[in-house]
Amino acid sequence: MKKRLYSKIPLAQSIVTLCEAKGITHIVISPGSRNAPLIIGFSEHPDMQCYSIVDERCAAFFALGIAQQIQKPVALVCSSGSALLNYYPAISEAFYSDIPLVVLSADRPIERIDIGDGQTIRQKNVFENHILYSANLYSEVVAETKIDDPKVRQKHHEAQKHNEREINLALNKAIEQKGPVHINVPFYEPLYDKLEHPTIVSRNIPVEKPHHQFSEDLQSEMREEWSLAKRKMVLIGVNSPGTVEQKWIEYFADDPSVLVLTETTSNIHHASHINCIDQLISTLNENEFKALQPDILLTIGGMVVSKRIKAFLRQYQPKSHWHIDSKKAFDTYFCLTEHIKLQPNVFFSRFFQEIKSVDSTYKSSWVSIRDHRRLRHAAYLDKIAFTDLKAFEVIFNSITDGQMIQLSNSSTVRYAQLFTLNPTFQVFCNRGTSGIDGSTSTAIGAALASGLPTTLITGDLSFFYDSNGLWNDYIPSNFKIIVINNEGGGIFRILPGKEESANFKTYFETTHHLTAMHLCKMFGFEYHTAHTFEELVRESKKVYENDHMPQLLEVFTPRKENDSTLIDYFKHFV
Amino acid sequence: MKKRLYSKIPLAQSIVTLCEAKGITHIVISPGSRNAPLIIGFSEHPDMQCYSIVDERCAAFFALGIAQQIQKPVALVCSSGSALLNYYPAISEAFYSDIPLVVLSADRPIERIDIGDGQTIRQKNVFENHILYSANLYSEVVAETKIDDPKVRQKHHEAQKHNEREINLALNKAIEQKGPVHINVPFYEPLYDKLEHPTIVSRNIPVEKPHHQFSEDLQSEMREEWSLAKRKMVLIGVNSPGTVEQKWIEYFADDPSVLVLTETTSNIHHASHINCIDQLISTLNENEFKALQPDILLTIGGMVVSKRIKAFLRQYQPKSHWHIDSKKAFDTYFCLTEHIKLQPNVFFSRFFQEIKSVDSTYKSSWVSIRDHRRLRHAAYLDKIAFTDLKAFEVIFNSITDGQMIQLSNSSTVRYAQLFTLNPTFQVFCNRGTSGIDGSTSTAIGAALASGLPTTLITGDLSFFYDSNGLWNDYIPSNFKIIVINNEGGGIFRILPGKEESANFKTYFETTHHLTAMHLCKMFGFEYHTAHTFEELVRESKKVYENDHMPQLLEVFTPRKENDSTLIDYFKHFV
Repeated sequence: MKKRLYSKIPLAQSIVTLCEAKGITHIVISPGSRNAPLIIGFSEHPDMQCYSIVDERCAAFFALGIAQQIQKPVALVCSSGSALLNYYPAISEAFYSDIPLVVLSADRPIERIDIGDGQTIRQKNVFENHILYSANLYSEVVAETKIDDPKVRQKHHEAQKHNEREINLALNKAIEQKGPVHINVPFYEPLYDKLEHPTIVSRNIPVEKPHHQFSEDLQSEMREEWSLAKRKMVLIGVNSPGTVEQKWIEYFADDPSVLVLTETTSNIHHASHINCIDQLISTLNENEFKALQPDILLTIGGMVVSKRIKAFLRQYQPKSHWHIDSKKAFDTYFCLTEHIKLQPNVFFSRFFQEIKSVDSTYKSSWVSIRDHRRLRHAAYLDKIAFTDLKAFEVIFNSITDGQMIQLSNSSTVRYAQLFTLNPTFQVFCNRGTSGIDGSTSTAIGAALASGLPTTLITGDLSFFYDSNGLWNDYIPSNFKIIVINNEGGGIFRILPGKEESANFKTYFETTHHLTAMHLCKMFGFEYHTAHTFEELVRESKKVYENDHMPQLLEVFTPRKENDSTLIDYFKHFV
Repeated sequence: MKKRLYSKIPLAQSIVTLCEAKGITHIVISPGSRNAPLIIGFSEHPDMQCYSIVDERCAAFFALGIAQQIQKPVALVCSSGSALLNYYPAISEAFYSDIPLVVLSADRPIERIDIGDGQTIRQKNVFENHILYSANLYSEVVAETKIDDPKVRQKHHEAQKHNEREINLALNKAIEQKGPVHINVPFYEPLYDKLEHPTIVSRNIPVEKPHHQFSEDLQSEMREEWSLAKRKMVLIGVNSPGTVEQKWIEYFADDPSVLVLTETTSNIHHASHINCIDQLISTLNENEFKALQPDILLTIGGMVVSKRIKAFLRQYQPKSHWHIDSKKAFDTYFCLTEHIKLQPNVFFSRFFQEIKSVDSTYKSSWVSIRDHRRLRHAAYLDKIAFTDLKAFEVIFNSITDGQMIQLSNSSTVRYAQLFTLNPTFQVFCNRGTSGIDGSTSTAIGAALASGLPTTLITGDLSFFYDSNGLWNDYIPSNFKIIVINNEGGGIFRILPGKEESANFKTYFETTHHLTAMHLCKMFGFEYHTAHTFEELVRESKKVYENDHMPQLLEVFTPRKENDSTLIDYFKHFV
C-alpha cells in the first residue's frame, strides 16, 4: 500500500484533520500553487474523495450539487487571487438555499497583500454579505514544531490555537446552520514539502446540538387556533425528498379544513394536494380569492417559485402565518406571526396532539376546482401546436421512473410548475438566488453524489452560460441533459415589456443561433435533436434507452410562438 | 428618424443623463427584467454604444478590455441577484489594474431583500473589498413628477437629490481614481414604461482636477540625490503604449548611470534597455547582484511580472525607491521612500532640470552582459526541439507589424518576457490579479475598442476557462487567437513541487485532451493546428493572411518536455 503523506505545514494538517473529524470527505479542488499544502493534505488522505475542476465557478456549483444531495458540507479548495471570487455565485446560492459549503482559500501571508505581488487580492471577509462565518487564519512563519526561542514558540502556539479554534467554529457553523463558510488560509513558501507523519494534533470542538424552544404555552395557544380555523393552508417550498414523514402528509390529507399547496420542488405528493398552484389561481376573481384566503398559513421548506401565490397571500393575508424551519423564516407575505425553530417532523409530532377536527369544505371545494382545471389543462395541451409548453409535456411523460430531475432557472422551472409530475421523480432547482449561472454544474454534482439516474432540463441561455460545467471528468454515463432551445431568453417574451423591436431582441430576448451540438462533441455527450412532437417522442425514448454515455437532447421550439401559447394557456382557465 | 424614448422611472433617466454628461458611452448589458429601465434608457440613446453579453463574467471582462483601451469608464448593466456576483473577477482586476468600470446593478427595493423573493441577494456594498465607491440608491415609490402630498413630494425630492449626488460621486471617482465603482439601483415595478420626454433634470457635479503636490524642497533634495548616484535603475511595470514621452526615454538612454528595465507589458522600447529581465539576472552570483544593486530605484507603471526582479530588489534594496504614479504606490520591495503623485511625464519635466551628469559604467557594463545573454539565447533557441519555448519564438516572429498582443496569464505572459518583441506591438495582460479567468473576453473588448488588429496568445486552461468569451457578437473579423495547448497547466511542471504522480497530474497539472476545434465551429472561428515547427511556421502565416473571419491557431506542444527545455534555458546562461 502506498504510504500516506502529509503537508509539512501544520496549518494544512490541522485543516485536513478537522475536516475529517467532522465528516467532511468530499473535496473539490481547483489547481494552483499557493493551495499546494491543502491539495497535498487532502489528495493524500485515503478517505477523502477529491475532485479536480479548473473553472472555479463550476467547481463551486458542482460542490453545491454534491452538498445538496448528501446534506453535509463539501469543501472547496482554491488558490489565491480572483480564483476565489469565481466561487461567489454558488456561495450566494448556498447561502439562500441553506446548503453547507466550506470554502478553503489559500492566501499569501498578510504582509504580501497590496504590495504588488501576483494573484493577491483582499480575501479577508470577501464574501461578507453572504456567508455564515469568515475565519481569517494566521500564517505560520516556520513550518516546524521545534522552535528554540521560547517567545517565538509561545507566539506560534497561540497562533496555532487561534487557527484551530477558528477552523472549528467555521466548520461547525456550516454544519449547525447549513450554509457556506469561508476559511482563508495564508501560507508561506515552501509549499510542496511533505512528511510521512503529521507534526501536530488538532483538537475537535464538537458541533453544538440545537436547542429547540417551543413552549407549552405557545403550543396550546397555537393548537387552539388550529382547532378552530376552518381554512388552513399548508404551503411547501423547496423541500428535499423524504424530509417530511408520510404520516403527516396523510394527516393533512384526512383533514377537510387543510389545503396543501405544493410545487414540483416540494417533492411531496398526494392526491389531495394543489400541485399546480398557478393553474388554480391564475384566473380567480375577487370573491374566489376571498374564499381561498386562509385563516392560518403554515409554511415549510425554502423558496416558493409561484409569483402568483406570493402576490395572492400578500394581498389576502392569513390571520396567522407560521413558518416551521430549524434555521430561518422569511416574512415572505408580510404577516409572519410565528417562526418555530424545529425540523417539520419534530414540530408535527409535538403539535398534532389533541387537535379537534372542524367541519370545513375548504379542501373539497378547491380540490374540485383543481380537478376541473386539470381537465381544461389536458384539453388545451391536446390542441396546441409544438411549442415550449407542449415540449415540456412530452418531456415529463418521457422521463423514466425514479429519475432525479434538476431544473434550471427562469422559464424551465416555471413551466415545470404547470404539470403534475411522476411522483417517483425527485426534483431540484437552485432557487436560493434563482440564477441561471450554475445549473449544469449543480446537476452533475448532484447526479454523482446521489447515484441516482439524473436529468437536467435547461433553457438554452442557462445551458450555454454554464457550458464549462461539462468540463468535468465525473459525469455519470447515465446523465441526461434536455435543452429547450428557443433561441434566446424566451421568458422575456412573456413579460409585460415585450415588443417586436431590434432593441428587445438584442438586449432582452438576446437571440442567438447556437446549438449544443459542438459542445456535445467536445465533452463526449451523445447528441439528439427534436424539432417536432414526433421527433421529441422518438428522441426522448432513445435518450433513456442509452446509458453507455451521457446523452443530450436539444429541443428546438418556435421562438415567436411560445409566448402566445403560454399566455393563452392561462386565459383558458377562465 | 426614430424617436428616442426614455424610461418612465426618473432614477433611470438620471443615470443615463449623468453617464452621458461624463462621457460614458460604452454600455455592456446583460439581459434581465429588473434592469429594464436602464436597458431602455441606454439602448434608446442615440449616442450610447450598447453591447449585449449574456454571461456576466465575460461581460465584465469585455467591458474591462474596452476600458483598458479607451482609458475612460465603461458601464456594466445587469439584473438583480447572482448575476452581479459574476462581475467580481473582472472588478478585482480593474481595481488592481486601475481601469475605470461602472457597475450599474438593478435591485429590488430594500424591503424586498431577504423575504424570499427570487433573484434577490444583499447587493449593497457587495464588492466592498475591491471597489473605489459603492453608491446605494433609494428607490422611488412613484415614478411620477406630480405628487400631490407636499410631505411625500419633499421626501421624493430629497431621495432624488441623494441619488443624483451619489451617482455623481461614484462616476467621478471612477474617472478621477481610475477604477471600478458600483451603483446599486433599486427599482419598483412597472419596469418597462417609456416616455417620449424625460421628466427630470439631473445636475452634473464636475470631476475634480487632481492637485499635484511636489514641493520645491523635495524636488531639490531628490535632484541632489539623483545627481550623485552612480547606479540608478528605472523599472517599468505594466504601462499603456504612448504614456511616456519619447524624449524621456532618450533622456534615460543618454545617461550612463541609468539602467532601464522593461517587460513586454511596459510598451517602451530602446536599444539600451534591459528588456528580458530574467535572462539577465537568473544566473547572477552574489557579487554580480551587488554590482546590479541600484542606489536609486525609480519605478513607474503597474504590476511587474518578473518574480526574480522582485526577489532581487527585496534582497538587494536600493537606498531610495521612488514610485511615480498619480494614484497609488505599492511598497513592492519593502523600501519605498517616496510616492510622487504625478503622471510620469509631468514628473520628468519638472524633475529633470539642472541635473548634473555623473560618471558611471552602470549602464554599459550591464548592457554588455545583456548582449552576451542575447547571443546565448539565440544559440539555445537554435538547437532545441519543438516545445513551448520554441513555439513562442516562432509565434512572435510570425505576428505582423502593428498588432495588439493580448497575453493570458500564467505561462504565456512569463514566456513572453524571454523574447525581444517587435517594437510595433502593443502588449497587454491582466496583471492586476494575474487571473486566468477572463483573458479572451478582455482581448475581444480591447480589439473592438482600439480598432487595432489583435492577437490573443493564451494557454489551454486559460482559453477553456473563458470559452464563453467567444459567445460575443462583436468579435472583429481580423481577431486572432493562438492557443498553446500543452494539455494542462504546464506551469506546474516548472514549479519546485513537480513529481510524476497521479495526484500531481490530476490536481496540479490538471491534464486533459480537449482541443479548441469544436469551439471554433460553434463560434465561427477558422481553425488551424500545428504540432511541429514547420506546421507552426506555415499555419501562423495563414492566420495573418486571412482577415475575412476570426482565426484560431492551436499549437500542440509536448507536455512532458516543455519544462526541461525551459529549466535548461536558464541554466544555459551560466
